Amino acid sequence: MATTQELNPAAIRALTRQVSPAEAEALHEQISQLMRQRIESGEWPEHLKLPAEPELAAALNVSRGTVRRAIRTLIEAGLLKQTRGKGTFVRGQMLEQEFAQELISTAQSLDREGVEYHTQVLSARVVQAPSHIAAHLGLRADDLSVLAIRRTRSVGGEVVYLLDNYLPTALCPDLSPQVLQERSLFGVLEHDYGVTVDSVRRTFSAILPDDDVSTAMALRPGVPVLYLEQISYQANGGSVEYSDVWVRGDRVRISSWIKR
Amino acid sequence: MATTQELNPAAIRALTRQVSPAEAEALHEQISQLMRQRIESGEWPEHLKLPAEPELAAALNVSRGTVRRAIRTLIEAGLLKQTRGKGTFVRGQMLEQEFAQELISTAQSLDREGVEYHTQVLSARVVQAPSHIAAHLGLRADDLSVLAIRRTRSVGGEVVYLLDNYLPTALCPDLSPQVLQERSLFGVLEHDYGVTVDSVRRTFSAILPDDDVSTAMALRPGVPVLYLEQISYQANGGSVEYSDVWVRGDRVRISSWIKR
Repeated sequence: MATTQELNPAAIRALTRQVSPAEAEALHEQISQLMRQRIESGEWPEHLKLPAEPELAAALNVSRGTVRRAIRTLIEAGLLKQTRGKGTFVRGQMLEQEFAQELISTAQSLDREGVEYHTQVLSARVVQAPSHIAAHLGLRADDLSVLAIRRTRSVGGEVVYLLDNYLPTALCPDLSPQVLQERSLFGVLEHDYGVTVDSVRRTFSAILPDDDVSTAMALRPGVPVLYLEQISYQANGGSVEYSDVWVRGDRVRISSWIKR
Repeated sequence: MATTQELNPAAIRALTRQVSPAEAEALHEQISQLMRQRIESGEWPEHLKLPAEPELAAALNVSRGTVRRAIRTLIEAGLLKQTRGKGTFVRGQMLEQEFAQELISTAQSLDREGVEYHTQVLSARVVQAPSHIAAHLGLRADDLSVLAIRRTRSVGGEVVYLLDNYLPTALCPDLSPQVLQERSLFGVLEHDYGVTVDSVRRTFSAILPDDDVSTAMALRPGVPVLYLEQISYQANGGSVEYSDVWVRGDRVRISSWIKR
């Protein structure tokens, strides 16, 4: 069967022929260099799964430690990535975020990828909730007041996320928006207000952003955007927070690894 | 606290005042009619969670059976939707697909929503796999042959999905593409070839479609599209299938309900 290897044996043997214990350069450096060439040339495409370390070591006729060191070099260089219990993969140039599958925030997701980012609070004010948000948050007609916070998250100087969060003021009195420049919203709710988000409903769609969103994200016209609506719930089923999030479609992918 | 009700008590009491056992119209019809008005006016926005049936029955001072019948009417009308173990929600006009979270196909996802759709095979031919697909499928250089199938899935006469599947011919010899007009690909692989898909890696991004995709989907220029790359694996870790899928961004949302 043609499909039992992630990386085919001939491709691994081709590497072996180019690795020489006689050369001055350390074996692990030779291996990482050869792998790097294949990744950078596109011969090994993004998401390609590498064989497990013992198989790779056996095929290359080197120790597991040598393979592990070569792989570590490429992980640090951002070319490979290891996913818990799933293996080692060629990493793409897009940010891959797993928040369609896990209750992690955009911030936690970037942290997990080891990506440096900068959060900026653009505005924060107490407003009367628009009707659809009031309904989702279960607000009474006599207290529609919500804290509306607009933030950006930037990577490498580019805005990749625009986040509009709406929180009932009754839930988090005196919340200082500036803390959300350094800390995650879910973290602040849990640690400062004792409110634990137990589940979220997230829906993703592709949109063309309006002028307001384009300006806030400094997008060129025509850049497609992922739009995410999020409603967060406590364990008792009551809603805690409503958000609109816009995600740069040409920088971020949502990825899920789904088991049967 | 303002957030312990999904639908606020005042909103439920407002319904009660308009329900009268003295009227000729059956109670469940009065209730479903009142709910329908609120949904159609937008007062109850999409994704709004209704209280549980016993709470709703108590608040409206009617039996649970009456509430259940009113809700069933609105589910059949496509205005409400029940999600296993999660509750009853106001349904949106977009198709909501849960395939970022569950190992279900686009076909199974439409089936689950009770949506009628039509699948058409546009082309099917044996080709040499492009290099990135050959790598993902673990093909040897001496057998790069894959069955490339292009299909559309339409809802209400509009193409909502364009699917390009690539299968190693060695994996499914003599597969007749026409069976994929009626049956799901995963189903055919499992039942006709004994190949069980155990996990999939799916990545979603927002794109502007190229001319080829726009033409196949009969899209107006500028309609944003969700692009999904899928790689399917067997339990032994070997890859089975590679797909590119394009999803109409203005018709389909990907939704996930994520528990901590």
